[in-house]
Amino acid sequence: MAMTPESDMSDLAIAARATLQPISRIAAAAGICEEAVEPYGKYKAKIDPALLDSSAPMGKVVLVSGMSPTPAGEGKSTMVVGLGDALAAAGTKTMIALREPSVGPSFGMKGGATGGGQSQVLPMDEINLHFTGDFHAITSANNLLMALIDNHLQQGNALGIDPRRITFKRVMDMNDRSLRNIVIGLGGPADGMPRDAGFEITAASEVMAVFCLATGLADLRARLGRMTLGYTYAKEPVTVDDLGAAGAMTLLLKDALKPNLVQSIGGTPALIHGGPFANIAHGCNSAIATNTARTLADVVVTEAGFGTDLGAEKFMDIKARYAECPPATVVVVATIRALKMHGGLPKDQLDQQNTEAVNAGLANLARHVGIVRKFGVEPVIGVNRFTADTEAELQVVTQWAAANGIACAVADVWGQGGAGAQELARVVLRAIEAPNNFAPLYALELPVEQKILMLVQEIYGGAGVDYSPRAKLMLEQIHANGWEDLPVCIAKTQYSFSDDPQLLGSAEGFTLQIREIIPKTGAGFIVAITGALTTMPGLPKLPAAMHMDVDEQGNAVGLS
Amino acid sequence: MAMTPESDMSDLAIAARATLQPISRIAAAAGICEEAVEPYGKYKAKIDPALLDSSAPMGKVVLVSGMSPTPAGEGKSTMVVGLGDALAAAGTKTMIALREPSVGPSFGMKGGATGGGQSQVLPMDEINLHFTGDFHAITSANNLLMALIDNHLQQGNALGIDPRRITFKRVMDMNDRSLRNIVIGLGGPADGMPRDAGFEITAASEVMAVFCLATGLADLRARLGRMTLGYTYAKEPVTVDDLGAAGAMTLLLKDALKPNLVQSIGGTPALIHGGPFANIAHGCNSAIATNTARTLADVVVTEAGFGTDLGAEKFMDIKARYAECPPATVVVVATIRALKMHGGLPKDQLDQQNTEAVNAGLANLARHVGIVRKFGVEPVIGVNRFTADTEAELQVVTQWAAANGIACAVADVWGQGGAGAQELARVVLRAIEAPNNFAPLYALELPVEQKILMLVQEIYGGAGVDYSPRAKLMLEQIHANGWEDLPVCIAKTQYSFSDDPQLLGSAEGFTLQIREIIPKTGAGFIVAITGALTTMPGLPKLPAAMHMDVDEQGNAVGLS
Repeated sequence: MAMTPESDMSDLAIAARATLQPISRIAAAAGICEEAVEPYGKYKAKIDPALLDSSAPMGKVVLVSGMSPTPAGEGKSTMVVGLGDALAAAGTKTMIALREPSVGPSFGMKGGATGGGQSQVLPMDEINLHFTGDFHAITSANNLLMALIDNHLQQGNALGIDPRRITFKRVMDMNDRSLRNIVIGLGGPADGMPRDAGFEITAASEVMAVFCLATGLADLRARLGRMTLGYTYAKEPVTVDDLGAAGAMTLLLKDALKPNLVQSIGGTPALIHGGPFANIAHGCNSAIATNTARTLADVVVTEAGFGTDLGAEKFMDIKARYAECPPATVVVVATIRALKMHGGLPKDQLDQQNTEAVNAGLANLARHVGIVRKFGVEPVIGVNRFTADTEAELQVVTQWAAANGIACAVADVWGQGGAGAQELARVVLRAIEAPNNFAPLYALELPVEQKILMLVQEIYGGAGVDYSPRAKLMLEQIHANGWEDLPVCIAKTQYSFSDDPQLLGSAEGFTLQIREIIPKTGAGFIVAITGALTTMPGLPKLPAAMHMDVDEQGNAVGLS
Repeated sequence: MAMTPESDMSDLAIAARATLQPISRIAAAAGICEEAVEPYGKYKAKIDPALLDSSAPMGKVVLVSGMSPTPAGEGKSTMVVGLGDALAAAGTKTMIALREPSVGPSFGMKGGATGGGQSQVLPMDEINLHFTGDFHAITSANNLLMALIDNHLQQGNALGIDPRRITFKRVMDMNDRSLRNIVIGLGGPADGMPRDAGFEITAASEVMAVFCLATGLADLRARLGRMTLGYTYAKEPVTVDDLGAAGAMTLLLKDALKPNLVQSIGGTPALIHGGPFANIAHGCNSAIATNTARTLADVVVTEAGFGTDLGAEKFMDIKARYAECPPATVVVVATIRALKMHGGLPKDQLDQQNTEAVNAGLANLARHVGIVRKFGVEPVIGVNRFTADTEAELQVVTQWAAANGIACAVADVWGQGGAGAQELARVVLRAIEAPNNFAPLYALELPVEQKILMLVQEIYGGAGVDYSPRAKLMLEQIHANGWEDLPVCIAKTQYSFSDDPQLLGSAEGFTLQIREIIPKTGAGFIVAITGALTTMPGLPKLPAAMHMDVDEQGNAVGLS
C-alpha cells in the first residue's frame, strides 16, 4: 500500500512546511559559478548560460510523457520531480527541467503545474504566480508588436497591411473569454483604425513558442523577425522584420530568456522556463533551459504536454530537431485510473478494483509504447501509484510489461517523493545506457500534407485526413510562400488518438478532420487544427480566485 | 560655466559606464538587515518593511516639486538624485524615493524616469523595462478583476451589474490608442456578454493608486475591496468586495508591495516603487516606500509629479494625509529655459541669453513659492542648471530670491551629480531644521464643490468653477453614496495654473471647467477632470521602439 502520510494536506500546505535551501547553495551544488547566478528573491534565480562552462559533455535527456490523459490528471509533472529526486538520491548528477505555469488558468479551475505532494518544485506559490516575470515579458513583447501594428495602420499604413488579414493577436495571461472576439479602434480618427481583433492567453502566443525554441538571443531575434503578423492588400505576408519591431521585442525578452533555477522538496535543482500551449504549440519548457541543464548535469528529466501522440511527438519532431536534444528514453506515465477509463469503465466506478478494465486499458498504453519506438527510442513505463490502486491491478500492468519486454516500474512520488521512485530510477538508468537510434518521424522536405498524413497514419493510427476548404486554401498559401519545409504541430484533443475526445482506448481507422492551418513562421512550424480550439479560456461559474487570499503573515491562501 | 564633461553621451551610455556596488552592500550600508533583503538580480532588491526595525525616529521628507513645467522638461527626477547624492556626501543619512517608470511610454517618445547625466538611479535599463515586475503585478490584479466582472455577467449576473455602467477598465502598460474604445464579448453566447469597454495604461489604474497609498497588506486589501467597479441596474454602486475579488487581487500584489532598492551613480540608496499618473491620480511613489525610507534614513528626498499646483498639492492633501509623511521642505525646481518660456519667449529663442524674459518668468515661480507656503511649509528654490544658461540669467533668479527672502541655490546635477548640488544641500539642510506648520489645505468634511473651489481660488488663482451637466450629476451621486468626505484630485494641464495649456506665466481670474467627476473609492479620492484627458496614450509616427535593440553582448540599445 502506497504511503501517503500527508494525503489530507494540500500541495500548498506541504510546500509551506518544506525547508528550502538558499538558492545560492542549490546553484553551487549544481556546479553553477557564482557570477552566472542572478537571484530573484531567496529561493529563485536566473542563470546566465553565457557564463557557464560549455566544454562539459552534454547530459542525457529523460523525457516524461504519458498515455492518453483523462480529466483526473496522470501526474506527469509530479513524476518528473519524483524521478529527478530519486536519480539525484542514487548519486546521478541530475537536473529537472519543467514548463512555467500560466497564472491565468489558476484563477479558474486548474491547479498549478509544479508537481504535487512530496514531489513539488518550490517555492510553489511564487512559481505559480508571477515567478520571475517571464510570462509578463512575453505578454509585453507580444503586445508591443500589436501596438506597433495598429499604430502603423493609424500613421498611414506604408506597408499596405490589410486590417482584415492581421493574424497576430494581443495576449493576456488571464482566462478572459470576453476578449476572444472584440472590435478595437472605435471612438473616432484619433483613436485608431476600427477592426476585428482578439486576445489569446499568453501561453498561446507565437512569441512564447519562439521564446521556447530559441537557442540564444540572436536566434530569438531572428525568429521574432520571421513571424508573420498578417498580409497586405495584395495578400503578401508581412513579417515582424518588415515592421521593424524585432529589436524592441528582443530587448523586452533579453532577461526573461535566462532560465530560472529553483529546487524540489528533495533539494534537486530544477530549471523552470517557458510555458507554451501543448496544442497550438509544442508544449515543452524552453530549449535553452533543457540544454543549459544538460551542460550542468548528466541526466535531465523533462516533460512534454499530454500523451506521446502529442507531447513526445512534438518534442521529437520539433524541439529535439531545432535544439538538438534527443531523448535517451521516454517515460510513459500510466495510472490505474486512466487504464480503467480507457478500458471502458465509467468515471464513477474508477475507485473500485477492476483488473479486467485495467487489462482492457492496456491497449491504449501499448499504442504509446509503440509511438515512442517509432522514433528509435526505447520507452520505460512509469506507473504513478494512487492510494486507491490495488496490488492486483498494479500487477496486471507490470506482468503485461514484463511479458512484452517493456521496461516498467511502479512509483509513489506523490506520497513519498524520490524515495517512492527508487526502482523507476534504476530502470531509467538502465534504459539510457542502451544504444539509441533516435530520428524524427519525417523529413522536413516532404510536403505539409505528406507530413500530416504520416503523423495520422503512423502515430495516431488513423486512415486519412480531410481538410476544410479554408485549410486547403492555407495549404496553397504555405506552398506559395515557401513555408513547406517547416515541421508540423497538430492541435488535437489529448484524450483520444483521434480528433474525437469520446473515442478512448485504442481508436483506429478514423479520418482526421483538419479545420484550419496556421503558419507560425517565427516559431518554425505549421499548426494544423482539428475540431474546436480556444486559445483564450474562460472562467467557471465559481472561479478559484474567489477562495484566494493572503493571510495575516502575508502567506498565500487558496492556491492549488 | 557648468561642467558637463560628458554632455555628448546618452544617459544610457553614462549609466553603462558607472560601476555598481552589489545591492547587498548598498542595503547593509543603509542599515537594512540581511533577512529583509530579497535580491532581484545583482543590483536590485525588494525590501520587506515588516522585517525592519521600526523603533527608529522617522526621517524628514524633502519633497521635490517644480514651477509650471514646459515640454523641454525641468529635470525634477535628476534633481532628486543629485540632491540625494549631495546630502549623502555631506554626511547626512539619506535615501532617495522615486516613482517606477511606466514602460509603455518609453516605446513612444518619452525618455525614462530615472534621472539623467551623472544623477541617475541604476541599473537604468532594468528600472526602465520590467524592473521587479510591480507594474506587471498591478496589470494582472486589475485585469483579474475585469475577467471576474465579465465572468459574473456571463454566469447569470447575480449582483445585477448594469453592463452599461461598469466604470472600471482593463489596463496594459503600453501606448496603444486602439484599445481606448473597444467592444468586447462578441462571437456568440459562449464568448461573453457584448459591451462597450476600453483599456487604460497601467499607471492610470485605480489599483496603482491604491497600491501607492496603502500603508500595508491589510490596508491594501481593504482599499481594493472598497473600489467601485460600476453600478447596478438600480444605480447602486458595486464594489470589489461585493464581487469577492479583493483576496485574489491582494495575492497577486503581495510581493510587489515590498519597495525596490537600487542605487544612484553616487551610491546613494534609492527606493523606486509605484508609479501612478499625476493627473487622474496623485503622482507620487508609494507611501510604503516613503515611510520605509524614513525608518532607515534621516532625510528622504522624494518627488511629486508636475508643478506645486498639481504634484505638491496632491502630495500634501492626499498622500501626506493618508500616509502621515508631511514634507519638511519643498524644493521648487526652476530652469532658466522654463522661466524664459513663462516670461513670454517663443520656443525657438530659448537658447539665447535674455534676462528680461527670465525676470518676467519669475511671476510663475513666485506663485509656486506661494503655493508651498499655503501648506505651512517653507520652500527652497533649486535652479537646475543647463549648459546654455548664463551667469547673468542665473543671477536674476538668485538675486530676486534673496531680495524676497526665499532660500535658493543653483545646482548642476546633470553634469556633476552630487558634487553639483553641494550648495543646494546646505540650503535644504537649513530649511528642514526650521519649524514647520504643515497642514493640508482643506478639511475633509467640506462638500466636494467647496474643496474644489478652495483649490481653484487658493492654489490655482482662479475665480470660480463651472461644472458640466455630467459632472453635476456625478456630484449628486457622490453625495448620495456618502463619498463626500474624500479628498479631491484634479486632473488639469500641468503647463498652466488654469485649464488652458496656452496660458503660461501667472494665469489668474479664470473659471475652471470641470468636465467629469470620477470617484475613486478605493484609492480614496474624487477625481475632477478638466478639459480633454486620455488615460491611454498613443504612439507617434516613428516610435522610439524602432531604434531599440540588444547588442551582441546582450546589452540594451536605444533606451533613453
